[in-house]
Amino acid sequence: MSMDEAAARALFATARVARLATVGADGRPHLVPIAFALDGDTLYTAVDHKPKRTTRLRRLENVAANPSVSVLADHYDEGDWSALWWVRADGVAGTVAPPEPRQARAVALLEARYEQYQRRPPSGPAIVVSISRWSGWRAADVGQGW
Amino acid sequence: MSMDEAAARALFATARVARLATVGADGRPHLVPIAFALDGDTLYTAVDHKPKRTTRLRRLENVAANPSVSVLADHYDEGDWSALWWVRADGVAGTVAPPEPRQARAVALLEARYEQYQRRPPSGPAIVVSISRWSGWRAADVGQGW
Repeated sequence: MSMDEAAARALFATARVARLATVGADGRPHLVPIAFALDGDTLYTAVDHKPKRTTRLRRLENVAANPSVSVLADHYDEGDWSALWWVRADGVAGTVAPPEPRQARAVALLEARYEQYQRRPPSGPAIVVSISRWSGWRAADVGQGW
Repeated sequence: MSMDEAAARALFATARVARLATVGADGRPHLVPIAFALDGDTLYTAVDHKPKRTTRLRRLENVAANPSVSVLADHYDEGDWSALWWVRADGVAGTVAPPEPRQARAVALLEARYEQYQRRPPSGPAIVVSISRWSGWRAADVGQGW
């Protein structure tokens, strides 16, 4: 019913967008869509510097307060629910800011994956997620929708 | 830079899929994609009965332990990052199971919105989210990507 970790990871890697869930110190969840790059079981995403007031961006505050995060990629098809799938990556996140080498590494991987980042590299901190668990679901395997 | 609540709600209502973030008793976030229906500031989503072992489904356990949830709808366009947008609905969730009238209400709204549910109505519990805050972001307003 659920797919194995290697299959889940491979499917996640095909997605161009994912959603990052963090949790605030108040216990409330926070969600944003992200562009991302994978390197093995490490996921990188970055923050543009302006005009999001990077220094107090909620996702960064949350990761500092509670490093547990979840990242979801999914596929929806209006006409064919048997084509639906999702993959979730659960792990622990940290933040790296310039001039830390891992921020440059994140930018390089993101530039390699997104043409838009080649034209305008993200200049803010990167979030680095060490993924400890991949899980996934495919409608075709179970014969129903979400 | 951010849109007003009415605009955010209207944009969210155009989405066919959203992502639901809940938080476990252990403080870890959990993410699933959902089909949904809106009725004012109330969002409904439902769980298919089998074979997801509904009685112990994580999202339901989490909502029981911590009712704070966040739901995100977004739009990605590979070729045009100026078309990107997202809307987030933050609120408090509860669960309603058959034969509660609100579960039937959820199913009716979901059937009206998704042809697939007309053919195969969700028979499990519904999650009802009372949304207290709509927030959104549109790339066209700020001239950059996520």
